Amino acid sequence: MQQTRLDTARIRAARQVIDPVFLDTPLYRCEALEPRLGCAVSVKLETANPVRSFKARGTEVVATLLAGQGPRAVVCASAGNLGQALAWSGRERGLDVTVVASRFATAAKLDRIRALDARLELVDGDHEMARERAAAVARSDGIRLVEDSLDIETCEGAATIGVELAGAAPLFDTVLIALGGGALATGVGHVLKALAPGVEVICVQPLGAPAMTYSWRQRRVVTTDSTDTIADGVAGRCPVPAVLEDLLLVVDDAVLVREASIIAGMRLLLEHAGLVVEPSAALGIAAILEDRDRFAGRHVVTVVCGGNVDLDAYHRWVGYEGPS
Amino acid sequence: MQQTRLDTARIRAARQVIDPVFLDTPLYRCEALEPRLGCAVSVKLETANPVRSFKARGTEVVATLLAGQGPRAVVCASAGNLGQALAWSGRERGLDVTVVASRFATAAKLDRIRALDARLELVDGDHEMARERAAAVARSDGIRLVEDSLDIETCEGAATIGVELAGAAPLFDTVLIALGGGALATGVGHVLKALAPGVEVICVQPLGAPAMTYSWRQRRVVTTDSTDTIADGVAGRCPVPAVLEDLLLVVDDAVLVREASIIAGMRLLLEHAGLVVEPSAALGIAAILEDRDRFAGRHVVTVVCGGNVDLDAYHRWVGYEGPS
Repeated sequence: MQQTRLDTARIRAARQVIDPVFLDTPLYRCEALEPRLGCAVSVKLETANPVRSFKARGTEVVATLLAGQGPRAVVCASAGNLGQALAWSGRERGLDVTVVASRFATAAKLDRIRALDARLELVDGDHEMARERAAAVARSDGIRLVEDSLDIETCEGAATIGVELAGAAPLFDTVLIALGGGALATGVGHVLKALAPGVEVICVQPLGAPAMTYSWRQRRVVTTDSTDTIADGVAGRCPVPAVLEDLLLVVDDAVLVREASIIAGMRLLLEHAGLVVEPSAALGIAAILEDRDRFAGRHVVTVVCGGNVDLDAYHRWVGYEGPS
Repeated sequence: MQQTRLDTARIRAARQVIDPVFLDTPLYRCEALEPRLGCAVSVKLETANPVRSFKARGTEVVATLLAGQGPRAVVCASAGNLGQALAWSGRERGLDVTVVASRFATAAKLDRIRALDARLELVDGDHEMARERAAAVARSDGIRLVEDSLDIETCEGAATIGVELAGAAPLFDTVLIALGGGALATGVGHVLKALAPGVEVICVQPLGAPAMTYSWRQRRVVTTDSTDTIADGVAGRCPVPAVLEDLLLVVDDAVLVREASIIAGMRLLLEHAGLVVEPSAALGIAAILEDRDRFAGRHVVTVVCGGNVDLDAYHRWVGYEGPS
C-alpha cells in the first residue's frame, strides 16, 4: 500500500511529549442516544481538557519541538481551536505565540486565545485570509509558521486519538470524523488502517463547506469560493494537496451533511448525552441522522472533537422547547 | 489516628474490578472559571461515562462480589444515580437488579434505570421512604440490600477517585466534595488523609438538606424532618452512624450553601467550562462563590460528581439571558 506522510512509530512517540491531560480521553457508549440513531454509538470525548478540543494533541508536539530549538516564536492561522491549543502549549514552554484569525471567528475561542497570553491578530476576511496573513507574518518576522494539517506534527498529534481508538477497536466497526483541513481525519485514519484495518473510517463535512470532500471524491484539489456553515472549525475552502493525498489513502468515505442535521446532532448530544459541543463535533451524529439505514446494526464511534461555542449562538441553534 | 472502616489496600484492589470506563477520569484546570472564583480551579469530571455519575465505581465493586456468590439478586434505594449505576453493573454481570426510588425523583434518572433493564419500584414519599421500602424488599425476598454509604463497597469504590486525585496532589491544596449519604466524602477523604494529608478536604451540602453537616458539626447523628433542595442526589434526612464516624475522621470541614449559589454554580460550569451538571455537582463551585476569601489564592479541585438532569428543569434553573 502507498504510504501516507505519517509514521505510526512517531505517533506512538508523540504520546510521550503530549501533556497527559490531553491523552486517554473518555471513550464510552451512550445508550441513551441509540433509540434515536438506530445503531450502537460510542463517544470519544475530546472536550474535557484545558482547551476543550483535540487540537492540543498536535500543538503539544509542535511546541515541544520548538522549545528544543533556537527560535522561540511561532504563528498560526486558526478558526480558534488550534490557536487556543497553540497558545496553551506555547505558554507552558515559554514560546511567543501569535494567532491570526478571522474577526468573524467564534468570540469564545478568541477570548480564550487572548486569556492564554497569545498575541491575537484579526483579519477582515475568512479563514483562508487568516492563513495568508499568518504566512506573511512568518515570512516578515522570520518565525515558525504552524500550518494545520500540512505540518506533520498536527496530523500525528491528532493521530494519537487513533492509537487510543485502536486499543478498543473490537468494540466498534465504524468511526465518524469531522473533516476540515484534514489533520484529524488523516491522523486517525492512518492509525486505524495500520492497527485496526477492519474499521470503516468515514469523514463528515458540512454541505456548506465541502471543498475537501469534493476533492476526495474527485481525487484532485477542488476549492470553493465561499463557505456557509455554522461549523466554524471545519470551514475551509482551499484543501492542501499533500493532505488530500493522505486522505485518499486512509479514508473509506467522505459524506456531506445539512446544517439542520448538524443542529439536530448538537441537540441530541445535549439531550441524551449531556454534552455541550460545537457544531463540528456534531457532524458524526448528523451523518447518522441523514443515513440511518447505512449505520443500522453497527457500532459507531464519533469523535466529539471540540466544545468551544458562543453560548448565545448555541442556545439559538439548539433552543429548548421540550424533549425531542 | 483512629481508623475509618475503609482500607487503602482494598481501595487500590477495587480498581482492578471496576470497568476501566469509569476510572482515570479527566482532571483538568478550568482557567475560564477562575476570574469569577478568585482561585485556581480544577475539575475532576465524573460525568463522561455510561451512567454519567461516579456511582458506578461503587456498584462495580458490589456487583463483582455478588456475581461470584450464590444469590444473583440485589435491591437498592436510590435518588437515581446509584440505581442507574447498579442497573448497569448488574446487567453486565447477569444480576437481577431492583431499584426503589421516590416517585418525585428526577425523571431522566428513572428513565435510564428502566432502560438498563432493572425493575423499578416507586414509593409515594422521599428518599428515606425508598430506603425503608428497599430494606423491606430485601427482607421479604431474601436478597442482597445495597445500602449507599453504609456498605463499604460503595465507599471504597468512590474512594478510587481519591487514589486518582492523590496522584496529582502536589498540584492542588483543597478538594470540595458533595456531601449526601457520605460515600464520596468518606471515600475520597480517607484516601487523601492517607496519601496526601496536606490537602484540605471540605464537604459541601445544601442548606435545604443539612442533616449530615449538622451531624458532623455536632459529632452525633442529627436528622431532619424534611429536605428542600434541587440537589436531589444529596437530599437525605437520616445520616448513618457508621458513616458519620468515618466522616469525622477524614473531613476537615463541612459547609452549607444556598440554592441560589448552587444554581449560580451550575450556570458558571455551563458558561465557562461547557459542562451540563446536576445540582449536586455544582456544590463545590457554590461553596467558593459563598466564601471567596477563604479560597483566594488556593488551587481547588471540585469533584463534578454527576450530570443526570431533567433538561427542562435544568433550563429553568440555569436559564440563559446572556453571559454572567
